Amino acid sequence: MAKEITSRSTDYAQWYNDLVLRGGLADYSAVRGCMVIKPYGYALWENMRDNMDRMFKETGHVNAYFPLFVPRTFLEKEEGHAEGFAKECAVVTHYRLKANPDKKGELMVDPESKLEEELIIRPTSETVIWNAYRDWIQSYRDLPLLINQWANVVRWEMRTRLFLRTTEFLWQEGHTAHATAEEAVEETRKMLDVYADFVETYMALPVIKGVKSANERFAGAVDTYCIEALMQDGKALQAGTSHFLGQNFSKAFDVKFLNKENQQEFVWATSWGTSTRLVGALVMAHSDDQGLVLPPKIAPIQVVIVPIFKSDEQKAVIDMRVREIMKDLKDIGIRAKYDDSDNNRPGWKFAEWELKGVPVRIAIGPKDLENNVVEIARRDTKEKHSASMEALAFYIKGLLDEIHTNMYNKARDYRDAHITPVDTWDEFKKVLEGKGGFISAHWDGTSETEEKIKEETKATIRCIPLNNPQEAGTCIYSGKPSKERVLFALAY
Amino acid sequence: MAKEITSRSTDYAQWYNDLVLRGGLADYSAVRGCMVIKPYGYALWENMRDNMDRMFKETGHVNAYFPLFVPRTFLEKEEGHAEGFAKECAVVTHYRLKANPDKKGELMVDPESKLEEELIIRPTSETVIWNAYRDWIQSYRDLPLLINQWANVVRWEMRTRLFLRTTEFLWQEGHTAHATAEEAVEETRKMLDVYADFVETYMALPVIKGVKSANERFAGAVDTYCIEALMQDGKALQAGTSHFLGQNFSKAFDVKFLNKENQQEFVWATSWGTSTRLVGALVMAHSDDQGLVLPPKIAPIQVVIVPIFKSDEQKAVIDMRVREIMKDLKDIGIRAKYDDSDNNRPGWKFAEWELKGVPVRIAIGPKDLENNVVEIARRDTKEKHSASMEALAFYIKGLLDEIHTNMYNKARDYRDAHITPVDTWDEFKKVLEGKGGFISAHWDGTSETEEKIKEETKATIRCIPLNNPQEAGTCIYSGKPSKERVLFALAY
Repeated sequence: MAKEITSRSTDYAQWYNDLVLRGGLADYSAVRGCMVIKPYGYALWENMRDNMDRMFKETGHVNAYFPLFVPRTFLEKEEGHAEGFAKECAVVTHYRLKANPDKKGELMVDPESKLEEELIIRPTSETVIWNAYRDWIQSYRDLPLLINQWANVVRWEMRTRLFLRTTEFLWQEGHTAHATAEEAVEETRKMLDVYADFVETYMALPVIKGVKSANERFAGAVDTYCIEALMQDGKALQAGTSHFLGQNFSKAFDVKFLNKENQQEFVWATSWGTSTRLVGALVMAHSDDQGLVLPPKIAPIQVVIVPIFKSDEQKAVIDMRVREIMKDLKDIGIRAKYDDSDNNRPGWKFAEWELKGVPVRIAIGPKDLENNVVEIARRDTKEKHSASMEALAFYIKGLLDEIHTNMYNKARDYRDAHITPVDTWDEFKKVLEGKGGFISAHWDGTSETEEKIKEETKATIRCIPLNNPQEAGTCIYSGKPSKERVLFALAY
Repeated sequence: MAKEITSRSTDYAQWYNDLVLRGGLADYSAVRGCMVIKPYGYALWENMRDNMDRMFKETGHVNAYFPLFVPRTFLEKEEGHAEGFAKECAVVTHYRLKANPDKKGELMVDPESKLEEELIIRPTSETVIWNAYRDWIQSYRDLPLLINQWANVVRWEMRTRLFLRTTEFLWQEGHTAHATAEEAVEETRKMLDVYADFVETYMALPVIKGVKSANERFAGAVDTYCIEALMQDGKALQAGTSHFLGQNFSKAFDVKFLNKENQQEFVWATSWGTSTRLVGALVMAHSDDQGLVLPPKIAPIQVVIVPIFKSDEQKAVIDMRVREIMKDLKDIGIRAKYDDSDNNRPGWKFAEWELKGVPVRIAIGPKDLENNVVEIARRDTKEKHSASMEALAFYIKGLLDEIHTNMYNKARDYRDAHITPVDTWDEFKKVLEGKGGFISAHWDGTSETEEKIKEETKATIRCIPLNNPQEAGTCIYSGKPSKERVLFALAY
């Protein structure tokens, strides 16, 4: 390795950047706040996307594609939505460049190409989609409409971080239309469950399902549900949101349907999204000071095989055996790579694949061949052991499952150990500054209190957990009565 | 059906729009020149995309994602490229809206959010990608770099048409980097072959592989290879392009590598792309006056089953049998739909699925059950016949292949019958105005002549076919000597 990775204890933020950059997931770009998702990072995202996409389709959703551009007047139509997004949007004002007469070889905006109405690069697509739904929905027979879109969106964030907060990011946004409020709420909750299921089952990351306070609600939503995960530095990360939009957008865009009683009614809406920020979440939740630790089910490479040899003859014999192993692995759907490049020594390769977070490494040398075994190294525990070549692929399959479970349990144990009930303001601040994690505390239910707590400590209410036990108490900040505890945390 | 579809002979352009809109492929949007790709159209595109993606990966390519924004100064760096794209690009000049003080409820561009350097929405990504490659490529060991991107791009076209030419469209763009010109040319040709293979094998559309004249070359390319298809109105459609970029972009972005002789050298480049315009191509090539005719391999629904019944009892028995058929079809990978909705009568359903181009329709009534047969209707020939329920799924599988072959052959026969050799200018104009199709004619090889022909007739050189027979002759327009015939046509 050319350079050591910064350790978590030295500088957590730098450790994260080192991992993303040197692990080959992404790179900075020339455009402020935008990143390049490199092939290894994109392969990881593809595996996440494909699994989510399958889960969406299994729950009855179909994909479509809506325009990148939101006319300015569309954004104005839903007041809360406009307030939420107007301050951070990329605005297209012209449609042509021309040669700059004063500077040879340079281009300039052609003032004659000014648009009559500015176009916003979509920060999210509720407005564009509900404008289309007006033509698509006439009767209750057209409902529900269960549509998802995979797309890029742009939000002009002032402070950006690779994957976690970038000006442009990739995401999916579901937009559904329903005949009743009950059905829309059910959809909102169902997709929250799909998200939680995906993040836990594929990313090995436990989440808490909850509902947002009014302050943290999506701009334009009646209710925002979320899944919250905990990172290794004790900060929370919102891993997905699902919004019940009520009739806000159907009213803004005049989308009515004829119900079974032959009456015109406004349509009920949901929207829900997850993004490439999930890649950041899994890096921060699982990785260590040696590099990435990728969850087996979505790792682009699940197994890497490194040959150990001193002569071409030895290499040839190993190659032959590895070809069989590779075939066996592929046959049962395991993504394996044989790293027989002659540029680097085995030790260098070990470190490289450790940095890249490949769950299982297999080393094979002449002695292993003699004994019909391989040396196996687990990325999660860094344990090494030898395993028989007999039925190796099935053994590896089991091992990958074991690694997944171990990663999930480790993250869950850490998370569970970092939900701290506190009953006083002093305690609150002490836990926040020291131990970190989620703080379970009474809150008086007002936005004012939440804002003051945020101002003083930067902590926000991450969520009011679903099925939250009701318990009388007093707000840690205002001392006013409270009926339940909510989860506070510092957050990404 | 609410309304008849315009026939091809009445108004070919309107026929196409009717099919796209009423077949449920796409819809107009509120933004000029942008369309909404509806679920049925997007499912078709997904099948195309997934097959191409697999083919790219099988030929050693990986996916990545680069920013949507191109800084203005990037576009300036490659002169030909700038000239080609500056005149039709969406320009982001500001990053914030604010409340309009003069008009309550309205938003306006915040003048204080003006960007120092304007950002162009990518019309293509050579500049952004080669700027990144500068950091990624140091030595010959880093080459070749074989990267593809699936993305949206924007070109501010003045005249737009659903799928064929839209302001925003979806595409893939491959961008590869090589150590030698030979290797880059080989890659350019290889990807042309992949495109031709995809379009012929999956879209049942024969293509002519060729190279573009200088006039039709991609802005910034040394050579542009293309595949050209013929539509039913005798106009050509460019279905994919593959460019040998020489060292134009590596020089513009200073991307050098250390070769095996330890010398710094500029990197050689290719780029290649196909887009959602392919959806328009397959609609125009195969469909008829009753609606879409979709190629079986990429049709979202390959088989639709319609029950014919008069009582609930009959329906129940049919349902039971159809469940088995559906399972058998699914088990061998056939995408089938059971249309047992009670909103519409069978005749309506027949017309609807005909409009939507489903390759095979199965009808099952009580009598069919008695005789252990089904009624099968082929979309391509509109022939109906009865088939045994025994091993029905395998029969359907064979039938889908037969339909593919028939569609391909029909399109190829039409195309072959519409390649007309002409030797005089009068003949040229006569064929162009009458029969249409490709005209194989001698050309003196100059851009001037090509431009004059275009001005007078709107015809362009679609390509100089690969392995074109060399044949001495005289240019149909200038009368100057020519060494080969090239293919002219009116084109989309």
